Amino acid sequence: MTFVPLTTQPQEIEQKSFEIIAQELGEHPFTPEQFPVVQRVIHASADFELGRSLVFTPDAVEAGIQAIRAGKPIVADVQMVEAGISRPRLEKFGDGSVHCFISDPDVAEEAKKLNTTRAIVATRKAARFYDGAIWAIGNAPTALLELIRLVEAGEAKPGLIVGVPVGFVSAAESKELLSKLEGVPFITNLGRKGGSPVAVSIVNALSLLAVKE
Amino acid sequence: MTFVPLTTQPQEIEQKSFEIIAQELGEHPFTPEQFPVVQRVIHASADFELGRSLVFTPDAVEAGIQAIRAGKPIVADVQMVEAGISRPRLEKFGDGSVHCFISDPDVAEEAKKLNTTRAIVATRKAARFYDGAIWAIGNAPTALLELIRLVEAGEAKPGLIVGVPVGFVSAAESKELLSKLEGVPFITNLGRKGGSPVAVSIVNALSLLAVKE
Repeated sequence: MTFVPLTTQPQEIEQKSFEIIAQELGEHPFTPEQFPVVQRVIHASADFELGRSLVFTPDAVEAGIQAIRAGKPIVADVQMVEAGISRPRLEKFGDGSVHCFISDPDVAEEAKKLNTTRAIVATRKAARFYDGAIWAIGNAPTALLELIRLVEAGEAKPGLIVGVPVGFVSAAESKELLSKLEGVPFITNLGRKGGSPVAVSIVNALSLLAVKE
Repeated sequence: MTFVPLTTQPQEIEQKSFEIIAQELGEHPFTPEQFPVVQRVIHASADFELGRSLVFTPDAVEAGIQAIRAGKPIVADVQMVEAGISRPRLEKFGDGSVHCFISDPDVAEEAKKLNTTRAIVATRKAARFYDGAIWAIGNAPTALLELIRLVEAGEAKPGLIVGVPVGFVSAAESKELLSKLEGVPFITNLGRKGGSPVAVSIVNALSLLAVKE
């Protein structure tokens, strides 16, 4: 076997990828502000259909940039999202903290007692602490449903909701509900697809914009 | 807004999802042994095309189960993979350790010195320690390319390679090369798609099989 001449230069790899994405995506409905976010989602998923399914409120990208510049924390629904979010850029503006409560012993205990998901209990816990945070929900539809309920009840005040859970039960429905939510900036996508790398790539795209502009 | 009656029962959600997947997937080329792995990948991605693109060596599922039962460690290419792999089932057979070297300071330093990716240097480091391990590569094509090179040079002896990196540059090529590798069991998929949740869901499916059978 001979090796094909594959590049091993990290920056070259990223630059080439972005060129291919821009080329293959062709016409699209996104604003110049939204495009870098869409591009990074496609980069993380190699899925143009998923990229095209993204939905933004008009103020979403700016709200994300401002939340990061104000040093607001990130709330992640699952540990994979927590692990993927790049810290160094966040730390330029605050303590760069990313919170994920889903594996806390008190959350597991409460979920068992209430016969509900740990994601729901973790969402209630985070809502008590982090006004103005960016919520990054990539996995658990029940986390997103609970966050929407808390927002409507005036019990949660996110700076931006990144709601892109994946799956066959409740995921598409939860994002459909989010897409109708008023008064809070959000980024979501329609359909079953989504996932932790999508949530992560959106937050990382926003922190890149926060640093650059 | 009224809430649609969405379930919040974790086991009910999973069971319903698996029913939908089996129904919608219809005919497929996978063996009964491989099917639970495919099902879990589709569950994690909501992507039937991705599920159908999976490729197994005939001994791959059994090799994965045996490696887990022998308490062999998991090597992850990135922290998102490390974060997603479920530990409790692994801990029934060993210390449940999942290793990821990509953020080690010595790896970063060496990569800079060699003008190469941290993923390549991290792969070399892990290969020195973990004979018989399950390698879970969900993100970095260069990690998979380096692992293939090390296997061919006799310098790495994986128990199973789960090689499903995602992306536009080198990902598809690295998986094409893996699909031709001889002498090592592997699970991969063809094309650009893949990602951390795919690698994670494959390893978690294998540990479920290791516990059940």
